[in-house]
Amino acid sequence: MKNISLFIIIILFVSCTQNETKETLNNVAVENSDPLPSWNEGTTKTAIIDYVNDVTNSESPNFIEIKNRIATFDNDGNLWSEQPAYFQLFFAMDRIKELAAEHPEWQNEQPYKAVLDNDMEELAKQGEHGLVKLVIATHTGSTTNEFYAIVKEWISNAKHPTKNVAYNKMVFQPMLELLQYLRANNFKTYIVSGGGVDFMRAFVTEIYGIPEEQIIGSRFKTKYDYNNGNPVINRLPELEFNNDKAGKAINIQKIIGKKPVFSSGNSDGDLQMMQYAASNKLKSFMLYVHHTDSVREWAYDRTSHIGRLDKGLDEANEKGWTVIDMEKDWKIIYPFEMK
Amino acid sequence: MKNISLFIIIILFVSCTQNETKETLNNVAVENSDPLPSWNEGTTKTAIIDYVNDVTNSESPNFIEIKNRIATFDNDGNLWSEQPAYFQLFFAMDRIKELAAEHPEWQNEQPYKAVLDNDMEELAKQGEHGLVKLVIATHTGSTTNEFYAIVKEWISNAKHPTKNVAYNKMVFQPMLELLQYLRANNFKTYIVSGGGVDFMRAFVTEIYGIPEEQIIGSRFKTKYDYNNGNPVINRLPELEFNNDKAGKAINIQKIIGKKPVFSSGNSDGDLQMMQYAASNKLKSFMLYVHHTDSVREWAYDRTSHIGRLDKGLDEANEKGWTVIDMEKDWKIIYPFEMK
Repeated sequence: MKNISLFIIIILFVSCTQNETKETLNNVAVENSDPLPSWNEGTTKTAIIDYVNDVTNSESPNFIEIKNRIATFDNDGNLWSEQPAYFQLFFAMDRIKELAAEHPEWQNEQPYKAVLDNDMEELAKQGEHGLVKLVIATHTGSTTNEFYAIVKEWISNAKHPTKNVAYNKMVFQPMLELLQYLRANNFKTYIVSGGGVDFMRAFVTEIYGIPEEQIIGSRFKTKYDYNNGNPVINRLPELEFNNDKAGKAINIQKIIGKKPVFSSGNSDGDLQMMQYAASNKLKSFMLYVHHTDSVREWAYDRTSHIGRLDKGLDEANEKGWTVIDMEKDWKIIYPFEMK
Repeated sequence: MKNISLFIIIILFVSCTQNETKETLNNVAVENSDPLPSWNEGTTKTAIIDYVNDVTNSESPNFIEIKNRIATFDNDGNLWSEQPAYFQLFFAMDRIKELAAEHPEWQNEQPYKAVLDNDMEELAKQGEHGLVKLVIATHTGSTTNEFYAIVKEWISNAKHPTKNVAYNKMVFQPMLELLQYLRANNFKTYIVSGGGVDFMRAFVTEIYGIPEEQIIGSRFKTKYDYNNGNPVINRLPELEFNNDKAGKAINIQKIIGKKPVFSSGNSDGDLQMMQYAASNKLKSFMLYVHHTDSVREWAYDRTSHIGRLDKGLDEANEKGWTVIDMEKDWKIIYPFEMK
């Protein structure tokens, strides 16, 4: 029931802000409205608004044509939370438990046993090799449509282990506003995430207002099957592309074909995407989310196993990129905190 | 000079039709204007217009939401000519001749020697293996930006061997109108071609009005290089993805993430893309270009080495897909025939 209420709130919010967009485009005066109401006044908010005003002003030497207004956003830790583990890992673990009845051998086989025993310590010991096994067991062997249905079912029922709210409630309200503000100014907003592209496509389009074709992520190999006239794309148990670090810049070139002018991330995994945007001949804006709020969200950076922000923070400071101090810059974190 | 004139005509055309679009969107009556003026009246034109009217009518049971109006178009032989060989092969051959001075060994080494001798018979004997060598020698070893510049330079100077006009003049005027008509009805138009994605991106956005991020094609492996703070993407001498046949359906799923509702091609290489669109639960439209005009363009189908249309023609007939009879359905082929 709570799920449904929030969903309605989000829909209403998106719907309202979309109307606002139309009005903006039709030159109805909305000058006094604040496009980023959940952001505290300060240098971060000012830097964003000054940039957008500058590059959308046709009289400015920094004016950017609409076709080049490409904005890329990481997802985990940037548009929604990623602690105590990537939400996609919780999906994999929940799915292992669901599938366990069909796999009695998992009771005695790692890393499955660790998941079934809720033994996070043992799971951590299994390392990346164990993680890959879990992901393959839960993310492949289905058609893309079957996989979407599995993820949709999960996201509408699962709860975060400590916050006890649905995962799709744990998106950052200030970032929803930023996405909407950029779109209102004719930026094309993309997700460029290390997460699985089809995992994201199953549910994020309605949360972020970003269509399937603007979601870029890691992916498995797939195979076309004519299937007697009802073609399907089968998901094979082999990672095809890891959309992280340099992979982000490579995939941006492959799929978008031009450098972003606006890039937002929160970890060292986003650094190459930032560098790629920073090298745009057009005026660009690099934005790092720094997780500094141990009370409302989580506080972590240079030594975190998840979402480590170390080299990125140094480079941001050195080059004068904008860094969001979550504790100071954001009035609220999640939409459900709205009054 | 001729190049420039045509370019101006195209710009004027695109500009006029874009204005028309805006008017349509603003509900200004343009009922009497013909959206497909270069198409002869008949079943093909009627089928296209009936489909668009149906699926964009919010009262129709076949209404399609804007976000799902995905239209995919093959390029070679579908949006421009492909005889007597794919235009990208002519680019490779011209480029081999340009690079020959740096490669004296090519004078005695196949397939380069065949190109330098203009010996098409010998080149054909070198088969696919020889072709791959030519393509690697001419399409890789540069950064993406360097490659764009090379292709741009070529397309603005090269002439078709028998028609003696620039290759970018050999686009199909009726298809330009169809692309524009679909976009005016809020379809998102994509190119999904076996041609190289970066070859196309270098020049087709301005011809077709399709942005870089809506061009899908074959591609080479690439590598990110930080390059002392000016990151580049290097093109490596290894084909990464052949965007043909089942590869088209696979790439559509990977990059767009949903089935097209409108799909247009001209060869058996497009058949899986057609089948994939045909299996959409939404009302879909499959359109084959049949090259039947030996006078104004070329006539070929079931036995052609280039753009063979055999199984696709059978399946189109069997399933009632729309087949363009180029000779009968199109008033003109190329924009330069416009009076």
